[in-house]
Amino acid sequence: MTTTRPDAAPQPSADRPAGAAESADAVVLLGLVAHLEHTAFVRLASDSAIAPTIEQRLALSRFAAAAVERRDRVLGRIVELGAEPEAALRQFDDVLTDFDARTEPSTWWERLLKAYVGYGVADDFCRLAAEGLDERSRALVLEVLDETSHADLAVTELDAAGADDGVLTSRLALWGRRLVGEALGVVQGLLTQRPALGRLLARSDARASAETGTPAATPANAPAKVFGELTAQHTRRMSRLGLTP
Amino acid sequence: MTTTRPDAAPQPSADRPAGAAESADAVVLLGLVAHLEHTAFVRLASDSAIAPTIEQRLALSRFAAAAVERRDRVLGRIVELGAEPEAALRQFDDVLTDFDARTEPSTWWERLLKAYVGYGVADDFCRLAAEGLDERSRALVLEVLDETSHADLAVTELDAAGADDGVLTSRLALWGRRLVGEALGVVQGLLTQRPALGRLLARSDARASAETGTPAATPANAPAKVFGELTAQHTRRMSRLGLTP
Repeated sequence: MTTTRPDAAPQPSADRPAGAAESADAVVLLGLVAHLEHTAFVRLASDSAIAPTIEQRLALSRFAAAAVERRDRVLGRIVELGAEPEAALRQFDDVLTDFDARTEPSTWWERLLKAYVGYGVADDFCRLAAEGLDERSRALVLEVLDETSHADLAVTELDAAGADDGVLTSRLALWGRRLVGEALGVVQGLLTQRPALGRLLARSDARASAETGTPAATPANAPAKVFGELTAQHTRRMSRLGLTP
Repeated sequence: MTTTRPDAAPQPSADRPAGAAESADAVVLLGLVAHLEHTAFVRLASDSAIAPTIEQRLALSRFAAAAVERRDRVLGRIVELGAEPEAALRQFDDVLTDFDARTEPSTWWERLLKAYVGYGVADDFCRLAAEGLDERSRALVLEVLDETSHADLAVTELDAAGADDGVLTSRLALWGRRLVGEALGVVQGLLTQRPALGRLLARSDARASAETGTPAATPANAPAKVFGELTAQHTRRMSRLGLTP
């Protein structure tokens, strides 16, 4: 029979962050991911309501329902970590309000590109920060953000639409540049307002440098490193659509 | 070893409508039910987007996702009957357009009451017509329409809101009367435009009168019987809310 002192620090394990501070940081990122999935649900559902064809309406409603399911899995992890899901969500209530006001799409194609490119930046940012999480939270976040069937739909449709329409292509390329600029502004705001996210990125970076032997980012160049990676992902995404990034 | 003539008429069974005509009628009602579930998804998702609290937003998004799942089960049955789900849905595209235009809710409470009372009439109509379906389709439709957690939410909230507010209560009672009037108009339109639905009601009525020994409706009094039942259900629903029907 073992006795444990009630004040003994919990041992880090695959299932558990190393301590209360790391756990609190994890809840911040999980709250952000859950908020993004909830936002995806709202957006996909309203896309479904106005989509041109019944086939698209059906497909988009299924993506919306899947976003609810992913969000709830993330909220479940927040509960496992002893935190309150509603409070974790609430702190991100307004995170996309300005972004959405500044990037109101005026056509169906602009909406599709916004979903793929605009929110893609937010997802990439969460993926980078997730590398600083405990193993179980990290695996969950990466799995949730790996769901690409909606992105595939956007790519297929945008590709088909743009293939023989030079005017559309160049308008969408311009729109993509606006989206990524505004999205990087959101990330900047998040890093200022939520120090927990910066700590997760630092932890992720320290882990990567330990594994690869490359030098870790210093506090001075860490933001540049993150923005560099986000911009590279954006370029890859735009190229996939045949649009000049 | 048995041989079947390829031109033998299919035998009615629990899993199968009695013939091609009955199967075609079933597809009409299944299309209507699937359309109503899809509409419920769109409505619940947009309610979720504007709900006052995070708790309500989460609950409504889950109801929306559940409506997608129910709609897809009904579409699955349409496929089993050899019909095309998109076509079955498409014929009801505009069935609620006028109703929605005429009953635009101006408050959150009016929205809730519309969901509970307005669409409740459509659900009741489908339940009545479902009694004329083959056994498997009928069981599915009744199961799908039996999902009441969203109605329970509406009842709880409306009840709490109206409990000590006489002005709200009497405004909502008035709103309920407008909703049921418009909803019965939708049913009237459906019966005129989709003779299949009238045939299902007649089949349902014939079955009920065979089982209970009561006289079946004649073509002359059948519509009155349906509207009588729908009105009775509406009265029961309004009373549950403590509103004068």
